[in-house]
Amino acid sequence: MGKALEGLKVLDLTQFEAGTTSTILLGFLGADVIKVENPATGDAGRFAFSEKRDEGIDSFYFIFLNANKKSVTLNLKSEKGKELFKEMVKKADVVVNNFAVGTMEGLGIGYDVLKEVNPKIIYAAVTGFGTYGPYKDYPCFDIVAQAVGGLMGMTGYPENPPTKVGTGLGDSIAATNLTVGILAALYQREKTGEGQEIEVAMQDSIFNTLRPVYNFYYLMGKQAPERTGNQTKLIAPWNSYKTKDGWVVVGLLTNPLWENLLKAIGRDDCLGDERFADPLSRGTHHEVVDSMIEEWTSKRNKMEAMSYLASRDVPCGAVLDQKELMENQQLKEREMVLEIEHPKRGKHEIIGCPIKLSKSKVDIKSAPLLGENTNEILSSMLNLTDDDLTKLKEEKVI
Amino acid sequence: MGKALEGLKVLDLTQFEAGTTSTILLGFLGADVIKVENPATGDAGRFAFSEKRDEGIDSFYFIFLNANKKSVTLNLKSEKGKELFKEMVKKADVVVNNFAVGTMEGLGIGYDVLKEVNPKIIYAAVTGFGTYGPYKDYPCFDIVAQAVGGLMGMTGYPENPPTKVGTGLGDSIAATNLTVGILAALYQREKTGEGQEIEVAMQDSIFNTLRPVYNFYYLMGKQAPERTGNQTKLIAPWNSYKTKDGWVVVGLLTNPLWENLLKAIGRDDCLGDERFADPLSRGTHHEVVDSMIEEWTSKRNKMEAMSYLASRDVPCGAVLDQKELMENQQLKEREMVLEIEHPKRGKHEIIGCPIKLSKSKVDIKSAPLLGENTNEILSSMLNLTDDDLTKLKEEKVI
Repeated sequence: MGKALEGLKVLDLTQFEAGTTSTILLGFLGADVIKVENPATGDAGRFAFSEKRDEGIDSFYFIFLNANKKSVTLNLKSEKGKELFKEMVKKADVVVNNFAVGTMEGLGIGYDVLKEVNPKIIYAAVTGFGTYGPYKDYPCFDIVAQAVGGLMGMTGYPENPPTKVGTGLGDSIAATNLTVGILAALYQREKTGEGQEIEVAMQDSIFNTLRPVYNFYYLMGKQAPERTGNQTKLIAPWNSYKTKDGWVVVGLLTNPLWENLLKAIGRDDCLGDERFADPLSRGTHHEVVDSMIEEWTSKRNKMEAMSYLASRDVPCGAVLDQKELMENQQLKEREMVLEIEHPKRGKHEIIGCPIKLSKSKVDIKSAPLLGENTNEILSSMLNLTDDDLTKLKEEKVI
Repeated sequence: MGKALEGLKVLDLTQFEAGTTSTILLGFLGADVIKVENPATGDAGRFAFSEKRDEGIDSFYFIFLNANKKSVTLNLKSEKGKELFKEMVKKADVVVNNFAVGTMEGLGIGYDVLKEVNPKIIYAAVTGFGTYGPYKDYPCFDIVAQAVGGLMGMTGYPENPPTKVGTGLGDSIAATNLTVGILAALYQREKTGEGQEIEVAMQDSIFNTLRPVYNFYYLMGKQAPERTGNQTKLIAPWNSYKTKDGWVVVGLLTNPLWENLLKAIGRDDCLGDERFADPLSRGTHHEVVDSMIEEWTSKRNKMEAMSYLASRDVPCGAVLDQKELMENQQLKEREMVLEIEHPKRGKHEIIGCPIKLSKSKVDIKSAPLLGENTNEILSSMLNLTDDDLTKLKEEKVI
């Protein structure tokens, strides 16, 4: 079986999360993703979060974000390094980066330069706020994007501060959007023969996830709703419930699902009760609804509650922690949890590809060591000889 | 200027959020997205959340999720409807749905059938848990995916329940992954001439966003970390801070950024202080760090604090609510907030496209009314006459 993106050559200048999360998808889907890294330090995420950085061992942070890629070292601050990079661009399809705005231009390898080198090149960048507008020069990490993009303002309980999501959503959703942009530009290139520039901003990408909630904003006469934790106050049940060993959630809208729930928890006596006639009525009586459900869940373990309710067609999920996720049978069967072997870390679990294509099998390969593929790629791509490579190494270009 | 996906024909059977969020991206990028809707009710999201459902006026929920699409009504439960749908599939590139597992097969228009009708068709589906594994038949709404995918377990303050994100992240991230899958399959089709099946599960997609946080899991000897609200306890500053009129966040890692902060808030006296020598030391002293910052922010308004700090290269963002987002100058200049006109709702703001391609301009078009394009599309795509259309309408097929 082939791979969807077989033959696609991606030069990956990304670091940390926002860019690497985009290119890992391209790698999973079969593209040849070549990380171009600084010979001294590599992608800033390689060692920054490693407890073994003194031994030069990559962090799990890096390993999780850079599976299915290759690594070439190249000093882009040296003239020779820039020159070699441009030679690589001539033979590549895509260049991706997530540097601060202006960094690529400062290095002399911005899109204006690279499109002269190869008019077919697709040049993609994730930044915090994009390349124009009043915030364009503002620095941005994930927590900033979650604040300014609107996610925090909608999340959490009113007695606490607006709450950030515990993972890098600003990075993750922007990265996935960038991958869409890259593939769309490739589609356009098939017809026009020309590359183009793509930019995705983290603020824009977080904001875009608010699309459906603007319904309530308009219903309330253009007012921002208060934060209400897990309960929406508008409909019920839509909340988290205590169990003997943790939490489950139940969320449903339609009456048939509500009836499934009542039967499952032995509350047939409430079938036909006017207070629960539709989602909004149930919302008005959400305290009764919630206590009825929690009375049932609190006597059970969370996995037991989930499988009992879900198998009776009630939308219910257990709140899983990171350890439980790694041991979750569903995620294992979906090949979302896999075991791989890293040359220095040994065997460990890793997260697989969330996009399943019937004709493009994903084989997970461990993230590359720094410069692992330098010689192989520079010799095959640029026809450099062993002597050339030795000299470049001496000159600290690679 | 052209559009990236010009000429791409997408038959869109999606409803609510998870599917519609995928196809709206295709529409923004220039694909011809044709919603195929039940003549009686349409996409279940059209009226479900509309305060004017009795007047047949679409919800803002629907309007926000279905810009840049067309609408054809077709009763897929009737034999004639199925037949016409298959005729449309012969001339289409992509079919997308987010029905429960088995629904398409139950209607007789599963992939096994459609690939016989058109071997080039790309068939894409978002579901809660995918089509295999022990959870495959479990019902799933967004809150369930956030629980079972691991996002809730990582979000919120320890004194509160694991906390869901205030918007439909499970839908949104799964949808974006699906769009990646569709475009990758199109790329593969250019070479093989064949379509394929794509599936994306909400649980998988949420879980995939946890990729970077598994670093801490391994650092802690494969233990799930506790929820700690906005503070990570590992590094500082990385938290939310009170201002006179709301909240800002500050998050930074490197020492140069830390020094920028100290100078900006007039705490040059702490430059060189051993307690703050690196991110981890600052983490150990996060209470001191946090109170130092809050002392400064609490005397200022949030927008003032943000622009002051950010323009001094300190990653800082104001927590914006939905109203502030709609009025945000950056989002306006990025064309993420636009004004459009809906035939029944009049002028209103809408969220634009988060993916910016230099050679594919996005023109936002209002979501279609139910069946707005039925006649136009069935006559042009299937050569039906006015008489044919009248008859189909009488038979309640369209």
